[in-house]
Amino acid sequence: VRDRCVRVTAGDARASYDVVIAPGALARLGELAAATARASRYAVIADATVASLYGNTACEALARVGPAEQFTFRQGEPSKTRETWARLSDAMLERGLGRDACVVALGGGVTGDLAGFVAATYMRGLPWIQVPTSLLAMIDASIGGKTGVDVPAGKNLVGAFLQPRAVAVDTDLLATLPPDEFRNGLAEAVKHGAICDASYFAWIEENAAGILGGDAALLPELVQRSIEIKAGVVSADPHEHGQRASLNFGHTVAHAIERATAFGIPHGQAVAVGMVAEAAIGEAAGITKAGTAARLTHALRALGLPAHIPPHLDAETLLSAASGDKKARGSRLRWALISQIGQAARSEGGEWTVEISEQTVHSVLQSGPGSA
Amino acid sequence: VRDRCVRVTAGDARASYDVVIAPGALARLGELAAATARASRYAVIADATVASLYGNTACEALARVGPAEQFTFRQGEPSKTRETWARLSDAMLERGLGRDACVVALGGGVTGDLAGFVAATYMRGLPWIQVPTSLLAMIDASIGGKTGVDVPAGKNLVGAFLQPRAVAVDTDLLATLPPDEFRNGLAEAVKHGAICDASYFAWIEENAAGILGGDAALLPELVQRSIEIKAGVVSADPHEHGQRASLNFGHTVAHAIERATAFGIPHGQAVAVGMVAEAAIGEAAGITKAGTAARLTHALRALGLPAHIPPHLDAETLLSAASGDKKARGSRLRWALISQIGQAARSEGGEWTVEISEQTVHSVLQSGPGSA
Repeated sequence: VRDRCVRVTAGDARASYDVVIAPGALARLGELAAATARASRYAVIADATVASLYGNTACEALARVGPAEQFTFRQGEPSKTRETWARLSDAMLERGLGRDACVVALGGGVTGDLAGFVAATYMRGLPWIQVPTSLLAMIDASIGGKTGVDVPAGKNLVGAFLQPRAVAVDTDLLATLPPDEFRNGLAEAVKHGAICDASYFAWIEENAAGILGGDAALLPELVQRSIEIKAGVVSADPHEHGQRASLNFGHTVAHAIERATAFGIPHGQAVAVGMVAEAAIGEAAGITKAGTAARLTHALRALGLPAHIPPHLDAETLLSAASGDKKARGSRLRWALISQIGQAARSEGGEWTVEISEQTVHSVLQSGPGSA
Repeated sequence: VRDRCVRVTAGDARASYDVVIAPGALARLGELAAATARASRYAVIADATVASLYGNTACEALARVGPAEQFTFRQGEPSKTRETWARLSDAMLERGLGRDACVVALGGGVTGDLAGFVAATYMRGLPWIQVPTSLLAMIDASIGGKTGVDVPAGKNLVGAFLQPRAVAVDTDLLATLPPDEFRNGLAEAVKHGAICDASYFAWIEENAAGILGGDAALLPELVQRSIEIKAGVVSADPHEHGQRASLNFGHTVAHAIERATAFGIPHGQAVAVGMVAEAAIGEAAGITKAGTAARLTHALRALGLPAHIPPHLDAETLLSAASGDKKARGSRLRWALISQIGQAARSEGGEWTVEISEQTVHSVLQSGPGSA
């Protein structure tokens, strides 16, 4: 069986790289490193939980190319700070890693962001390889070269763009993911179909039960198709000046929910609910085909995901959470919507986001989209 | 009179930019910003001393394009830390600057490194403009896109490469520089001639008295020729994989002197002494034409710069300061030498640095090069 492989072309040719998708890819990490990022030493950055599960396998696989050492931090988003970044960098300096080293980010989205920012800034930049271990990281966070940390003013406000040399996606790792975390990743897969590919969306609808059950024949296909979509968007717009905004479908409401609940609702669930709400907003504004919110609701529920906004979050609360941050920067809220399943909406001027009257948004959020 | 202008081509065309050299360039900063980095707001980063001298002029000049605000820090290398970088970033976030802002680095080398690193990492990267105010920053630090901060393990170990959109060199500012600081900058000009351009070196020798006296006809010429040399080297090797190492001529000994004196000797003086010592090492190793160290000594003294290693720094002290750091990283000391005035030395394999036996280095340092 040949490995599944997706090419990401980010900006110029030198920044292009392959995403290799294969069961057992972790144990073959050495091959990939030898081919794409030969280095005198490898710094494997992982949170303590992932390190205990996969750290040794990664280091043993890399050892055939060069010595590999682990650098760990405490699991979770609260670790994604400048302080953890500084501590990891200093630990690598103390161990004497030089400009000929390579960083390996082993873990979920937090690890990729943090390890990528270490790589982007260590001695003005080291090459790095991503090894995503969660479904969300595999199909979303590990594609696109965004790195960074959270600061008091907000999430991801300090960071850098740095494309990795390669991404190794080991679909075997999905079997050990907690079911909640697995479902959270599926929300982004639904989004990929919704913004770009109607036939992929239909395939997810048809195979929802098998996907949710972790069918080993379906998951690599899902991972590959989602990565192809994300890679296509990133390749067209590596620095987020245009099309990349379409990936924010569902995320304006999702971020409002996360902020209003102090991140008490997992990202995937917030995105699921957010897509339904934004489809309803689009329908009310005459941008989105009627019935789209209902179809999204059906698909998300079949994947074990919620589709309606928790009742205690009223329209005022969400609107102020959504627009507060923007208003502080003197700019207005813009929405990345879809015109129908499989197609991102574009303005007459060709923009990937639109403004929607606050009244329309308010009345849709008030009516409880997705609860029907 | 047309402005002097040097083009830096760093990597790909999008990263190319102009260095504009002109008396009064600071007051015309708005024009340059409008042409190269139009933004909704400008963040002028400067140390408190430079801000009090030139901050208002810069902001007024920029105001014709967009509102400009000052962000300041305490003068000096001890400020070049992750903490100052974080404080500046947070202050900009608090004032609500977004992705459509532009950073202006107004000051010497410390400011360029620090403000550049803020620009490289603020919301994953803002455009920036450099306005160097010291001779050293004009002809060296502001060309090449190196940004970064010092950390406990050493100087400049955390940072990024980010080419600015433009560099504005106002040669009028040289008139207000303290004489010591002006002479320190001249050491790098001598280095540029020594590694790249024999006729420029000879021009400096002939005009040493006028240059040292601040002759307004000579300084723009000196600044331009040095920038052309630095820009040529950086354009050939933007990420320091080869030729850029030639800029380190004199710097191996200079860094050893700085470390051994806990940075008690200014960088320019250390580089002056370092060039003479490294020319002598090259002569002893049969790499550098005989008489080169003597010619460098003569030129440096004519510019009011020292040429001999302070007597209290013996060979053992310097060697261990020079190699300690390298040994910790498992690598060996390599030297960027010249074959004669005007020409960097290259190894038979084409490399820009060579290894020299510790015995040769020791005996040269022992003999007190430059003191003759």
